[in-house]
Amino acid sequence: MKLLEDRIKKDGEVLDGDVLKINSFLNHQVDPQLMMQCGEEFKRLFADQKIDKVLTCEASGIAPGVMTAYVLDVPMVFARKKKPSTLNDAVYWADVFSYTKKVNNKICVEEKFLHKGENLLIIDDFVAQGEAVKGMVNIAKQAECNIVGVGAVVAKTFQGGSDWVKQHGLHFEALASIDSFKDGQVHFENEN
Amino acid sequence: MKLLEDRIKKDGEVLDGDVLKINSFLNHQVDPQLMMQCGEEFKRLFADQKIDKVLTCEASGIAPGVMTAYVLDVPMVFARKKKPSTLNDAVYWADVFSYTKKVNNKICVEEKFLHKGENLLIIDDFVAQGEAVKGMVNIAKQAECNIVGVGAVVAKTFQGGSDWVKQHGLHFEALASIDSFKDGQVHFENEN
Repeated sequence: MKLLEDRIKKDGEVLDGDVLKINSFLNHQVDPQLMMQCGEEFKRLFADQKIDKVLTCEASGIAPGVMTAYVLDVPMVFARKKKPSTLNDAVYWADVFSYTKKVNNKICVEEKFLHKGENLLIIDDFVAQGEAVKGMVNIAKQAECNIVGVGAVVAKTFQGGSDWVKQHGLHFEALASIDSFKDGQVHFENEN
Repeated sequence: MKLLEDRIKKDGEVLDGDVLKINSFLNHQVDPQLMMQCGEEFKRLFADQKIDKVLTCEASGIAPGVMTAYVLDVPMVFARKKKPSTLNDAVYWADVFSYTKKVNNKICVEEKFLHKGENLLIIDDFVAQGEAVKGMVNIAKQAECNIVGVGAVVAKTFQGGSDWVKQHGLHFEALASIDSFKDGQVHFENEN
């Protein structure tokens, strides 16, 4: 998605350790028009699939997730990183390993919001090692849902997450695919 | 907003201790069409104001916040509950007291996303004691922004948060104002 790639080139910050910070339009400040365009692009990319629900993860997945669900006209569920005090019902849990902090965190989804046989589109803001996606796939499988695909706003394809999704036979789409950082610059897969 | 009140009556769960759980369309599963309608209603309610940016708080504020920012065609910033590892720049901090857990938590916003004199609309999903709103007002004041108003998707008007906002001279609007729970049922301010 050219518009997104241009925005990453313009506003993304490349930090040490192959970290890309896109706080100015995705992860802290959010550009809602761009999020809507991402939602429309996901709809186009997964147009051959019947989708009943969007599954994403708090916090940064919510903006692209809710826009995608809006254009698809389906509900969205966001996995929670801790169980809220008002969440007393049965939940599915999955571990999510944090590479930056070297610890296992957990995400959860209340069981009643995922139904057996339901067609889920998983949306994530950022797929690097893909730990959040792995956790969401785990939860979808516990619920016996059908995963129609995984959509990432941004993927760092050299860090294994997107390969893991494809190796598990899932349809993967990223709106911007970064294959390397060279001299502090982002390099996309489709660039020379 | 009749549509929202009807949905709360239909799908909200009243728990012990005056807790209303609306996980099925706002706080865990999200109805994106309803969120867009909330955004349009906030636009109408604050139509007399110039708004440069929407400020909300992760996680449940993001869906109504991003839709409001979308219809207003302005950026949204969501306050973070912890400082992400990639967030190395200067931030504004505020305490947010948790009544359920009896502890002070913190929220933060990167300084560069709030500019002196900017007109902020604060959006929150739920205003009870209003602690998250107080934290966002604190941050907006540190940044010397102009708070044009505070919009809550749902307010429990008997728990002090909405009064606090009004006492501080701020324009407050809630799309559904709950003044009591009677026999496990929600009672809205505009009902007999």
